[in-house]
Amino acid sequence: MVAVEDISNIVIGRLPIYLRALSQLIEEGQSVTSSHELGERLGISSAQIRKDLSHFGEFGKQGTGYKVAHLYDQLRQILKIDREWRVAVVGVGDLGRALARYGGFVERGFRVTAVFDNDPQKIGTDLGDLTVMPMSALYNEITAQHIKIAMLAVPAAYAQSVCNDLVAAGVRAILNYAPITLNTPFNVHVQYIDPVAYLQQMTYYLDSDPMDSVVKDSGAAS
Amino acid sequence: MVAVEDISNIVIGRLPIYLRALSQLIEEGQSVTSSHELGERLGISSAQIRKDLSHFGEFGKQGTGYKVAHLYDQLRQILKIDREWRVAVVGVGDLGRALARYGGFVERGFRVTAVFDNDPQKIGTDLGDLTVMPMSALYNEITAQHIKIAMLAVPAAYAQSVCNDLVAAGVRAILNYAPITLNTPFNVHVQYIDPVAYLQQMTYYLDSDPMDSVVKDSGAAS
Repeated sequence: MVAVEDISNIVIGRLPIYLRALSQLIEEGQSVTSSHELGERLGISSAQIRKDLSHFGEFGKQGTGYKVAHLYDQLRQILKIDREWRVAVVGVGDLGRALARYGGFVERGFRVTAVFDNDPQKIGTDLGDLTVMPMSALYNEITAQHIKIAMLAVPAAYAQSVCNDLVAAGVRAILNYAPITLNTPFNVHVQYIDPVAYLQQMTYYLDSDPMDSVVKDSGAAS
Repeated sequence: MVAVEDISNIVIGRLPIYLRALSQLIEEGQSVTSSHELGERLGISSAQIRKDLSHFGEFGKQGTGYKVAHLYDQLRQILKIDREWRVAVVGVGDLGRALARYGGFVERGFRVTAVFDNDPQKIGTDLGDLTVMPMSALYNEITAQHIKIAMLAVPAAYAQSVCNDLVAAGVRAILNYAPITLNTPFNVHVQYIDPVAYLQQMTYYLDSDPMDSVVKDSGAAS
């Protein structure tokens, strides 16, 4: 076991993916797996998987593979999701609504317990088990609930300001859906979900068949 | 300029992030920038940015920085989003609805032009300018429109089967919101958006303060 600082973000980022595959194996009733099998399922090399896991101790013996349930439990402990984290959602547009109602959080360690918006039409309305609260209640509610995690689903123009409010209230992890890069103190972790950035990454690899897209302009520089 | 194969996915993945920052600079009326300034905004080292961009040619001169509009146009050409790509959305739950109605795609290279679901209650209903089509229409509609890109927002249990249908219809890039790893032919690109995986990656770095989370179990293995 090495210190937190020594393990790269990229390695940590793969652990939830391993966990997801292990969860699937458990559902399928499989009790033992191998780095080879996990690698096949995930499109990651078995050597990479063994190396990633070796940062955290010995999980399997050469030749006998990994005990699925044990590795699953260990990864949940390492990622600190062997408990349930309360999460705030800020912004109740289409996306915030989808996040607040999403059923897949609870079984994987997270429960949305507070939802905020600044629209008087939305404040006070019900969203699943929750009631949309005004932004003015954000500080008190988040501190009272000891919420450390928030999902930010407000328009880009408001994202930094809301981010500042969240950090002031003690939030230390933000999943940001607004397409801007946030400025945060060093002890606040931010992950970005920008579907367009993912799409743009894939079009790089697509053929330039004129039937498949509409050429709008050739760029101001050409 | 080097061949497509020589540039890692990780480098390509950063280009949309650079593009987003450049777009913001354009909005702010700034005409010249530097790898140092971009790095500050993005939390990426300036050396990394210079190295990434150097794969694609010379964009700036030592000491004079980058012309924002030129670099922006070049990156759009490299990523092939100097045109508009048609995109299909499959699955009209909360998330699919949010994706189909999201206004941020068009200005960044993508337009949702087909929406599918298998729920008779949803088929035929309007979603923005579009009408929800049945899954049985998927093949004909996607081939007729030459759609190469799809966003998959169906439950995990259906995701692989729908993925197969999309690939059969000619889709070559899939943004998958279902929390499973898809099997696809080598020439189909898949990106995954699993908010829980991002949350789990961040909890690794959070303190284990007992006030901040509810311990549910100590793991079956302990």
